[in-house]
Amino acid sequence: MLLLHLSDVDEASWARAFAEALAPYPVVRRGDDFDPKDIRYIFVWKPKPDAFDGLTNLKAVLSLGAGVDALLKHPKLPDAPIVRFVDADLSQRMSDYVVAHVTMHHRQFSRFRDDQKARRWSQYYPPAAGETTVGIMGMGVLGQDAVTRLRPLGFDLRSWSRTPKAMEGVEGFAGDQQFDAFLAGTDILVNLLPLTPQTTGILNRKTFAKLRRDRLAGGPVIINAARGGHQREADIVAALSDGTLGAASLDVFEVEPLPPDSPLWDQNNCYITPHIAAISNEASGVRYFSRALMRHEAGEALPNVVDRSRGY
Amino acid sequence: MLLLHLSDVDEASWARAFAEALAPYPVVRRGDDFDPKDIRYIFVWKPKPDAFDGLTNLKAVLSLGAGVDALLKHPKLPDAPIVRFVDADLSQRMSDYVVAHVTMHHRQFSRFRDDQKARRWSQYYPPAAGETTVGIMGMGVLGQDAVTRLRPLGFDLRSWSRTPKAMEGVEGFAGDQQFDAFLAGTDILVNLLPLTPQTTGILNRKTFAKLRRDRLAGGPVIINAARGGHQREADIVAALSDGTLGAASLDVFEVEPLPPDSPLWDQNNCYITPHIAAISNEASGVRYFSRALMRHEAGEALPNVVDRSRGY
Ligand SMILES: NC(=O)c1ccc[n+]([C@@H]2O[C@H](COP(=O)([O-])OP(=O)(O)OC[C@H]3O[C@@H](n4cnc5c(N)ncnc54)[C@H](OP(=O)(O)O)[C@@H]3O)[C@@H](O)[C@H]2O)c1
Ligand SMILES: NC(=O)c1ccc[n+]([C@@H]2O[C@H](COP(=O)([O-])OP(=O)(O)OC[C@H]3O[C@@H](n4cnc5c(N)ncnc54)[C@H](OP(=O)(O)O)[C@@H]3O)[C@@H](O)[C@H]2O)c1
Repeated sequence: MLLLHLSDVDEASWARAFAEALAPYPVVRRGDDFDPKDIRYIFVWKPKPDAFDGLTNLKAVLSLGAGVDALLKHPKLPDAPIVRFVDADLSQRMSDYVVAHVTMHHRQFSRFRDDQKARRWSQYYPPAAGETTVGIMGMGVLGQDAVTRLRPLGFDLRSWSRTPKAMEGVEGFAGDQQFDAFLAGTDILVNLLPLTPQTTGILNRKTFAKLRRDRLAGGPVIINAARGGHQREADIVAALSDGTLGAASLDVFEVEPLPPDSPLWDQNNCYITPHIAAISNEASGVRYFSRALMRHEAGEALPNVVDRSRGY
Repeated sequence: MLLLHLSDVDEASWARAFAEALAPYPVVRRGDDFDPKDIRYIFVWKPKPDAFDGLTNLKAVLSLGAGVDALLKHPKLPDAPIVRFVDADLSQRMSDYVVAHVTMHHRQFSRFRDDQKARRWSQYYPPAAGETTVGIMGMGVLGQDAVTRLRPLGFDLRSWSRTPKAMEGVEGFAGDQQFDAFLAGTDILVNLLPLTPQTTGILNRKTFAKLRRDRLAGGPVIINAARGGHQREADIVAALSDGTLGAASLDVFEVEPLPPDSPLWDQNNCYITPHIAAISNEASGVRYFSRALMRHEAGEALPNVVDRSRGY
């Protein structure tokens, strides 16, 4: 039996789609009449504190989120394997966001917008893509997809991950020892890390100060599409104001929705989107998790199981 | 002997570079002491009315511009073949511009910027790239390069050219008869046509009204990086104001520099850049034209010769 436990999304719609995809396998929601001991799989998004109570026969926790940082903090999370969502459609949308913001900053969008407001015709020729280095933090599913999109555009690319990763056309850096060298040659920093104790607050003043300063007109740029917990917003405001950073694109925030009194809203060189970089698509989500469940019932291994010791 | 006749650019610098690349072949500038009959090649940019006077032994006119619309209107243009500039670096920069503006509009930049100004957290999820159709007018050197950049991003692509052009992953339309069908499925229209009598004013009210209206949130978008003569600016202002167009990115204008009293400056959904989409690089220009000249002297054919009857 599969139990759905979703907050802030249309649980009824997901339940209908799962029931159809899995039939005759039973699918239930909170409030339905069922024995908790019959639940073998639970599909969750922002589970409430009592979400896992009584589920003594769980075979797996299925996570609608690609990131499991919040789930791993659930005080009553059972010891079953956690399957996170990995999906081509989600990766595509994330790369759409990343490419749009990388290219906008590379082409000096802020500068030309300021010129336009002042009715100023001031010819400045942006460098070719190959003269600009995009540094990607996190070379997992999303980081690798971003590479396949940015590479044909001609950008100079480098990446940073926990363990060494080799990708054609990308200079790879790994681990804390190579972090500074990675930053020193980066003009546009893209964050696609998972949120773990090691990566919390990584987008801070010290990191910004280590980025390459003499290449991209206006100064180095950060783009955060991973988690708000990665960034220190007070540091970002200060860096955008004193020129340590030329611009920032932020899709995620320490507190969401971003509070109305946040100084980020007014920062002209900060580009805010309301956590919409990439959404989990219901059709592909149901397809992915239904297949995982049925294959697991048939004795196969679960896909994309989270390593709790690493935190992602 | 090669004569340089360049306006508005650093002619002396080009002359030094050509002299070095071609030595011992003689290179001269206006004002130097030479017999006009000895000039076999002239390298021009915005040639003055007397530019070609006395050059009775010309073998070719070398054009720094990729577009030759202005040159073809020169009242004393001699009958020698015109070689236009075709260059990977120039194409790369043009595609940099095109991709940055296509992706910015696809990701609903204007909408999120308005929300930010109003401190409004309003979650809207842009469609995936594949759900958005980019229609490229002009499938020449630049249009084809744009395709090789936009295709890996996942956009749905269509093209329009004078004669049918087949490119993998692109739905091709050709000629006036297929223009309306091309527009009817286009969400983001990119103009990379040469300016000819046939294409003058093609970005007008009637064209805008034929674009697909029900797909891209905010309405269809035009991007013009070719020539100001392609667009009717009064029509653009009206279309941006009444919602016929959702947004426009313009790098070129009917009059350049764009006059301070143009209503385009104040149009919030118009993104103005001062004719900087792509610049001709001195190093690659000198390499390209030196090679063309030397090969031609050795009896080979000239590359990228303009067809005067077509006008490009
Ligand atoms: N804003 C949004 O709409 C949105 C949508 C989806 C996902 N996300 C976020 O994006 C994150 C990444 O997703 P993904 O699917 O690409 O994750 P993933 O496949 O697990 O990849 C994670 C990458 O980060 C690296 N990494 C982890 N800890 C590190 C550390 N301490 N130092 C250096 N590198 C480290 C990993 O290194 P190794 O390769 O060595 O393991 C790996 O390359 C998710 O966790 C989620 O928070 C955001
Ligand atoms: N803003 C800037 O910084 C900048 C920089 C460089 C160039 N440009 C402009 O970009 C233009 C295009 O350059 P390019 O090198 O790509 O030119 P190109 O190689 O000559 O290609 C021209 C394309 O336009 C098509 N075309 C011409 N007349 C047409 C008509 N009446 N109807 C439909 N299609 C027509 C051609 O069709 P066929 O394939 O059938 O011949 C061809 O596909 C240049 O002329 C120049 O004005 C602007």
